[in-house]
Amino acid sequence: MKAINISEKFKLFNEHWTPKKIGELNGQQVLLAKLKGEFIWHSHENEDELFMIIKGSLKIELRDKTVHLNEGELYIIPKGVEHKPIAEKEVHVLLFEPLAIKHTGNVTNKLTVKTFETI
Amino acid sequence: MKAINISEKFKLFNEHWTPKKIGELNGQQVLLAKLKGEFIWHSHENEDELFMIIKGSLKIELRDKTVHLNEGELYIIPKGVEHKPIAEKEVHVLLFEPLAIKHTGNVTNKLTVKTFETI
Repeated sequence: MKAINISEKFKLFNEHWTPKKIGELNGQQVLLAKLKGEFIWHSHENEDELFMIIKGSLKIELRDKTVHLNEGELYIIPKGVEHKPIAEKEVHVLLFEPLAIKHTGNVTNKLTVKTFETI
Repeated sequence: MKAINISEKFKLFNEHWTPKKIGELNGQQVLLAKLKGEFIWHSHENEDELFMIIKGSLKIELRDKTVHLNEGELYIIPKGVEHKPIAEKEVHVLLFEPLAIKHTGNVTNKLTVKTFETI
């Protein structure tokens, strides 16, 4: 294995809301995603999900509050908690979550990606 | 839970080789550590370990090669693989690893921290 350069990996794709896998460990995966616009309300029944902001700003709406995340900040959405990410401008995020997760959680729609591509 | 600002968390401690916990998810933990100097050769029998460089540069010696990591880069040490981190100057790292891990792995010595403080 070689060192993984996060900025270089982000140059390899441009799609929004389509996480790419850059690593696996302990049944978990490290994903990178570019987000822009509004995602859907969803929750993950069995998985906690970590968002780390690499570039830009992200708003995550929860049912009882809104979390504002800037570059260098992270937030963990506990399992079962409904959330809706909103990126007014493009944001680059790193996600840390179990291999078994579906990024749209309990909802399947046109945004759902069945298998995350490894880059 | 509030947004966790990585830079702000690093201001809360100065010890080297003493990871601090900033989050938990899916039986895993997110740790921050300041490293300076040479650590010991060790391995983790059952745990893969992710190093992400937040500030500075880190060299990780493996038995068959040396990995050089700079800011914005990450590396996963697979379970069972002996490694020795070396920081010529102070480096700030983020670690992802299982809750059950001991940072000195199979070796217990004066550097071993039994419980990681949460900050």
